[in-house]
Amino acid sequence: DINFQRLWDSLMAMAEIGPTAGGGSCRLALTDEDDAGRRLLIEWCEALGCQWRLDPIGNLFIRREGRRNDLPPVALGSHLDTQPLGGRFDGILGVLGGLEVLRTLADAGVVTERPLELVVWTNEEGSRFAPAMVASGTYAGVFKLEDTLAIADSAGTTMGQEIERLGYRAELELGEPGLDSYFELHIEQGPVLEEQQEAIGVVTGVQGMRWFNLNISGQNSHAGPTPMRLRRDALAAAARLIDRLYAHALADTSGATRVTFGQLEIASSSRNVVPGELQLTVDLRHGDESQLDILQQLFEQEVAAIEEAFGVTTDCKQIWASPVVDFDPACIDAVDTAARQRNLPHRRMMSGAGHDAVYVSRVAPTAMIFVPCRDGISHNEAEYSSPEQCGQGVQILCDAVIAHANR
Amino acid sequence: DINFQRLWDSLMAMAEIGPTAGGGSCRLALTDEDDAGRRLLIEWCEALGCQWRLDPIGNLFIRREGRRNDLPPVALGSHLDTQPLGGRFDGILGVLGGLEVLRTLADAGVVTERPLELVVWTNEEGSRFAPAMVASGTYAGVFKLEDTLAIADSAGTTMGQEIERLGYRAELELGEPGLDSYFELHIEQGPVLEEQQEAIGVVTGVQGMRWFNLNISGQNSHAGPTPMRLRRDALAAAARLIDRLYAHALADTSGATRVTFGQLEIASSSRNVVPGELQLTVDLRHGDESQLDILQQLFEQEVAAIEEAFGVTTDCKQIWASPVVDFDPACIDAVDTAARQRNLPHRRMMSGAGHDAVYVSRVAPTAMIFVPCRDGISHNEAEYSSPEQCGQGVQILCDAVIAHANR
Ligand SMILES: NC(=O)NCCC(=O)O
Ligand SMILES: NC(=O)NCCC(=O)O
Repeated sequence: DINFQRLWDSLMAMAEIGPTAGGGSCRLALTDEDDAGRRLLIEWCEALGCQWRLDPIGNLFIRREGRRNDLPPVALGSHLDTQPLGGRFDGILGVLGGLEVLRTLADAGVVTERPLELVVWTNEEGSRFAPAMVASGTYAGVFKLEDTLAIADSAGTTMGQEIERLGYRAELELGEPGLDSYFELHIEQGPVLEEQQEAIGVVTGVQGMRWFNLNISGQNSHAGPTPMRLRRDALAAAARLIDRLYAHALADTSGATRVTFGQLEIASSSRNVVPGELQLTVDLRHGDESQLDILQQLFEQEVAAIEEAFGVTTDCKQIWASPVVDFDPACIDAVDTAARQRNLPHRRMMSGAGHDAVYVSRVAPTAMIFVPCRDGISHNEAEYSSPEQCGQGVQILCDAVIAHANR
Repeated sequence: DINFQRLWDSLMAMAEIGPTAGGGSCRLALTDEDDAGRRLLIEWCEALGCQWRLDPIGNLFIRREGRRNDLPPVALGSHLDTQPLGGRFDGILGVLGGLEVLRTLADAGVVTERPLELVVWTNEEGSRFAPAMVASGTYAGVFKLEDTLAIADSAGTTMGQEIERLGYRAELELGEPGLDSYFELHIEQGPVLEEQQEAIGVVTGVQGMRWFNLNISGQNSHAGPTPMRLRRDALAAAARLIDRLYAHALADTSGATRVTFGQLEIASSSRNVVPGELQLTVDLRHGDESQLDILQQLFEQEVAAIEEAFGVTTDCKQIWASPVVDFDPACIDAVDTAARQRNLPHRRMMSGAGHDAVYVSRVAPTAMIFVPCRDGISHNEAEYSSPEQCGQGVQILCDAVIAHANR
């Protein structure tokens, strides 16, 4: 059995690298803080006798040998980078949970059939270098290496420059090592498990996601003298769109339809000026690809409808699409079996958020494990899962990985 | 008859003080540019033999003597300060139109019965020092002098400090000189006259206006994993409110109901985060005070409704109320008569925007004259009224003022 206290201590130690005033962590991808976090992990793993290697995009692979080292490894892991005001668990639990699995095996003197590979994916958050999950996506062949290396942060520094600055030397070719399978433990980042008082989410796949930038152009005009019927109010148009889409998503009693308008910015706004121009971000998600198509169609119809109704013009750019992911049945079963055997209340569920597992699943059988987090809050210094919640998740990770490595 | 070309030349000369890249003007209240604009006007008026005086809040009164200088003067004017990216006409036309009236009288050697007073009100725009129209309001006793002097700009500099820095020495007590009547020419700042192909708006009063700051608090949460039914989406709540109020205003076929949401700012927004907190400005207007009460009630009901429907809390502060203004029947008639005698297509109309005339009307019989402006655009470098449109307005101003001064 894994050691809840040791796991917690390592989580809290990692949180001291890049600490924020509000009790969270700031380790933006490929900064000195991110590097320091990796070095701490490497130190801990070297103490266990593990070897480590980097691939050309800085993904870190830490190996624990098995009995059959000719077989591809069973992998486990997640990411160590954070949001600017990130928490102590998002990504980190998957990595340090993996560390705790390695330590537990070392304590028990257990050697698995297949080797194990603890993986730290570079830049999952996408906060410094957009988009998210880009290094696991590059490993999986979804993005081209040269494109990913050229992604720049807001100051113009590229991922490639930072990888060079930090002295990351690739011993692996891109796509190496090939994986037997991949297990990622993560906090849910939503409220379902907590609400249902369940300890474990057996993650069967990931919702499809589509991101859009919508520009709405009307006409600035004075709030007083301009009759309503002559206005071309970009904000009123956006409000209609948001209200319609939101109501549509709410009306789906299955709960599978998700619609979010995260950012709305009015150009040079003023209290007594009818808004003439604004930018709106749109995030559509569904667990079923054909339903996501229908949702996108509805969205496009509503955009056309506001053009008509409000005399505005629109410009809508799709900037990302991540198709629905179905995880591997055998990997899912390994997680499910572990949760049943440990008598932990659990449920099968889709992940609403993107994770490195999304892209890894394209090249290796994959599943994920979720644990509850308080109030479903994430991407926030207040992010919290208890030592017990974290420990239970790592126990399931440990059981599933061992079962899979020995199958 | 007034001289269209001379009027136009003086408008274009004034626009060269604080010129902006986009062809507008920037003369924020009580800056060096604003002061330079006043000095140019004073120079022009001194050439006509006029004397000028300041009151304690920097309002500038330029006097042309009449035959009966024991009688209170008939006043005309507006403001010379502009928005940061302001146009060449908003306010300026009323002042330089007044100058053109004085020049026309001088050319013709006409002396009116009552004296005339050309007035430049300080800080009408409210852009540097909020709220708008505050110096005419102080003159009229609506605001206390000490409060107005203490209004600070965003850098912390007060109106009082700037009045001192510019060396403005008050020769008048606050509220002096008392006015026989006041006529303000202004661009419409809306599209009605242009649309109706009318040259003159005979302004019978000003809509009532109420300004609110509305804060909506929900809960930030992740766009993916958070089910719709558990969200507390501040933007979705705002969208419902905006859509309902906008539809209500549109449904008033009289066109008298006006609702504007000019600014909406989401706190630390992110594309894949459900908005948890936002600030919204609300501007409600109506030409009938009891209807404005009903509109405000409806607004408050809809705010309560979104609390219920979206699980958000709200905090609504009323920051300004300007009651409906009815101008003086005799002054209105003077304008109407002039427009009829000049055979200019005209209509009686309410002003949708606030003007210095709103506050002056509390202490002196008042009316306003509107001229069309292209596409109804104002508070914008692109603001434009043609030399003919400007000239026709000044002609009506001239005729009404002479008639009133000689009555
Ligand atoms: N886990 C996570 O926040 N991923 C970013 C992509 C998303 O919005 O789901
Ligand atoms: N004329 C003008 O823009 N006044 C400011 C107050 C208002 O919004 O009406």
